[in-house]
Amino acid sequence: MATTQASPAPLRITVWNEGRHERQNATIAARYPSGIHGAVAEGIAEHLGEGAVVRTATMDEPEHGLTESVLAETDVLTWWGHLSHREVSDEVVERVRRRVLAGMGLIVLHSGHWSKIFTRLMGTTCTLRWRNAGDREVVWTVAPSHPIAAGVPHPFVIEQQEMYGEFFDIPAPDELVFISSFSGGEVFRSGCTFRRGNGKIFYFSPGDQDYPVYHHPHVRRVIANAVTWAAPDGPAEKPRLIHSETGWFETGGDATA
Amino acid sequence: MATTQASPAPLRITVWNEGRHERQNATIAARYPSGIHGAVAEGIAEHLGEGAVVRTATMDEPEHGLTESVLAETDVLTWWGHLSHREVSDEVVERVRRRVLAGMGLIVLHSGHWSKIFTRLMGTTCTLRWRNAGDREVVWTVAPSHPIAAGVPHPFVIEQQEMYGEFFDIPAPDELVFISSFSGGEVFRSGCTFRRGNGKIFYFSPGDQDYPVYHHPHVRRVIANAVTWAAPDGPAEKPRLIHSETGWFETGGDATA
Amino acid sequence: MATTQASPAPLRITVWNEGRHERQNATIAARYPSGIHGAVAEGIAEHLGEGAVVRTATMDEPEHGLTESVLAETDVLTWWGHLSHREVSDEVVERVRRRVLAGMGLIVLHSGHWSKIFTRLMGTTCTLRWRNAGDREVVWTVAPSHPIAAGVPHPFVIEQQEMYGEFFDIPAPDELVFISSFSGGEVFRSGCTFRRGNGKIFYFSPGDQDYPVYHHPHVRRVIANAVTWAAPDGPAEKPRLIHSETGWFETGGDATA
Amino acid sequence: MATTQASPAPLRITVWNEGRHERQNATIAARYPSGIHGAVAEGIAEHLGEGAVVRTATMDEPEHGLTESVLAETDVLTWWGHLSHREVSDEVVERVRRRVLAGMGLIVLHSGHWSKIFTRLMGTTCTLRWRNAGDREVVWTVAPSHPIAAGVPHPFVIEQQEMYGEFFDIPAPDELVFISSFSGGEVFRSGCTFRRGNGKIFYFSPGDQDYPVYHHPHVRRVIANAVTWAAPDGPAEKPRLIHSETGWFETGGDATA
Repeated sequence: MATTQASPAPLRITVWNEGRHERQNATIAARYPSGIHGAVAEGIAEHLGEGAVVRTATMDEPEHGLTESVLAETDVLTWWGHLSHREVSDEVVERVRRRVLAGMGLIVLHSGHWSKIFTRLMGTTCTLRWRNAGDREVVWTVAPSHPIAAGVPHPFVIEQQEMYGEFFDIPAPDELVFISSFSGGEVFRSGCTFRRGNGKIFYFSPGDQDYPVYHHPHVRRVIANAVTWAAPDGPAEKPRLIHSETGWFETGGDATA
Repeated sequence: MATTQASPAPLRITVWNEGRHERQNATIAARYPSGIHGAVAEGIAEHLGEGAVVRTATMDEPEHGLTESVLAETDVLTWWGHLSHREVSDEVVERVRRRVLAGMGLIVLHSGHWSKIFTRLMGTTCTLRWRNAGDREVVWTVAPSHPIAAGVPHPFVIEQQEMYGEFFDIPAPDELVFISSFSGGEVFRSGCTFRRGNGKIFYFSPGDQDYPVYHHPHVRRVIANAVTWAAPDGPAEKPRLIHSETGWFETGGDATA
Repeated sequence: MATTQASPAPLRITVWNEGRHERQNATIAARYPSGIHGAVAEGIAEHLGEGAVVRTATMDEPEHGLTESVLAETDVLTWWGHLSHREVSDEVVERVRRRVLAGMGLIVLHSGHWSKIFTRLMGTTCTLRWRNAGDREVVWTVAPSHPIAAGVPHPFVIEQQEMYGEFFDIPAPDELVFISSFSGGEVFRSGCTFRRGNGKIFYFSPGDQDYPVYHHPHVRRVIANAVTWAAPDGPAEKPRLIHSETGWFETGGDATA
Repeated sequence: MATTQASPAPLRITVWNEGRHERQNATIAARYPSGIHGAVAEGIAEHLGEGAVVRTATMDEPEHGLTESVLAETDVLTWWGHLSHREVSDEVVERVRRRVLAGMGLIVLHSGHWSKIFTRLMGTTCTLRWRNAGDREVVWTVAPSHPIAAGVPHPFVIEQQEMYGEFFDIPAPDELVFISSFSGGEVFRSGCTFRRGNGKIFYFSPGDQDYPVYHHPHVRRVIANAVTWAAPDGPAEKPRLIHSETGWFETGGDATA
């Protein structure tokens, strides 16, 4: 039995993409005619429907499309980058980081593992093994009660993928949701959650410019689930993490006042 | 901006209570005129409204009110017991355990830490320190991005409470959401999540027959949040955990078929 | 530069084995001429030398060889069983469990995942997928700073093994040390730590009666590392977990006295 | 019974301190006549004896006393700073970070929570509440099987301390060992482990320039325990985390070669 009631305001999603592969390589452009960001955004919209308003932003827009006002109106940001991590402005990275610590969700996809924003939030090198040889990836759920795993088969298969293998130099995730295997015998912690400050982060490794992974129905479902999971929870009174003039974060006052 | 759409079916909540203190002691009966279960159920209904259908069950009903059919129609079960843990039927405990491992959420409250169902699911003694002397409890959020902490102040205060202190002999929780302090200087991991099988468990320590804790607005909000968090997530294809005739659980077949 | 000083008393290890496969099957007996327990004990002695005193105990000894006095003199117990989990006496299981919660280390090997002692301590079904078809297992380290992973290559390979695959129905481990892949594309959390009460538990999946896995040098190194890790740490003043006459565990008194 | 055998080479410990409070304030100088670093070093030496070689380094030495060669010969580094976090050279911080990720242990003490090295490794703000009013701190063990808690009472009391309270903006620790309470009712996760890359990190909050905390016997024991725990484990073949000319860390090659 379903009831009818006013739904909450839709989630505001910003899908960020470097957006250069698609302009430099005709094969990739044909695979992702609306860009990798377009495919990711379509997948989210497909699942969340009226529950989400999805926009995109890319590297070569002013401020990479991530102005203060865009971020202020973003509940969850997804991030895909590969060729040009070092060209991302440190100022924008710090702006995103502050928003995540203040509560914005962040979904880091595939080669985004080496983005400035992810390595900065993790504190580690985020290095891994890789091999681009069309491996078959099998994605296994190891946290079956987790909402990010809802509705996807156990396991699901991506027929061709770049191999990402351990050791993946990340902090032990707060929750390990997926582990993948590859044809070569490698394994990878492919779905990992991290809470940082007031924000939630999900890293999901499937996805590459050389394979149509963002058209894969289960990959799309996982990303949509992750967006829902990472959204800030209601009008909570969160601890205030204040960025002062001196560059340090501070809270003040007595605890029990 | 809110949109109008069909809401999902309401959560089906069963609030379980031993229900004996209230019948044996006039002071407690006056404090909880509809029973501890009544107060817990009211708090949930207050927050979830049409999003939940709440029923109650108590110790002295046949099968403790937890028949197979009641459990089959329960998404989340809350548990309060104190005087009579050992009188709870082993058969019912195993029935509840199987449902939790199959995906039903479980919220264990206060003195439920020594219930058969909680100790059986944890595998440890679940012992703790305690003192019933009207301590002031201050509840601090240590996972501010967790949905169970949404909407409650940091910290919130319970003016009078039974003291529960460390060492609390539980497995390290998957997520530690709240830590409490008490007037005597004790600390307690008062809000803890645990994933087990396909199910989610939340232990929350505030609440006692000798204090009006289940009328406390923030305690009610936390319990309602926990119920929402612990609900099974959609029509996921979960791993099958099968209870065979021999008493063992089994899954079979090849992994990637 | 090494100094000479009095070493601590050697660790007291008890290697427990069901010990029936080796008596019932000539091929297995040839593979493990001193029993699976013999091979495990040799591997530990090989690595720990004078630092350990290793004895064995088996199913068909009185009280399964695990009397109160044997357990009282055991710092770390290793457990291998397969055919006869249900024949292990509940009384002995409870005795072992109490010793683990009081501080004794426990190493559970391979098919021991379905032992009474492991499922009782975990609280879950501990079920998994399996296939006995000579898969190649590749064992990857995902916690390179963990002492249990010291000295083994990343990855190491077991040429022939029974496949154990996810979903493995255990609580999320406190620390995930190893993940294995198998020829069929399955993955498995093959090395997991769990703290329970005052004791430490390590589950390690490699090892089977049908393959010479306990003669494998890296498997032996891991088990020896795990024994060292799981040993109780010095003369600590641990929380007292008391088993009272009523069957409940209790601690008493004020916290800060 | 103890045996005599060659001991392993002693641990090489470097105790780092800002070292300015003691030069600027006669009261603090009287409290810590050999500096805070001197007191920390004495406590470690007291417990580890011939098992450790302890040296110190301070802010105002060239390269803060942390040259490449000093770090190359350091197994575990302890860090205390307060007044001058921002004056620590970014180059030295990055050098220390690379050594931690390569396997060196790091113990961060008290106000070191806002050091560049700790915030860089955590990725969060590491902010907290504080009040310098001589609170009584009670330190409770919540991981009684952890070697860092060995040999200290549960709880132990520090009669006068600066208050540090939640929310402490750190990643959820891999293992939570201690929780403290303060006179004002605050709580704090006062002993936390973090694995990062090949290295181990322990944060321990007790200790302040205004109180004689580093003369406290249990505080000394915990720091000595932590040093032992954080030491690299043997000649392990660790994953290689390579710092390339481009500033990125890389590993290469096939996984199973």
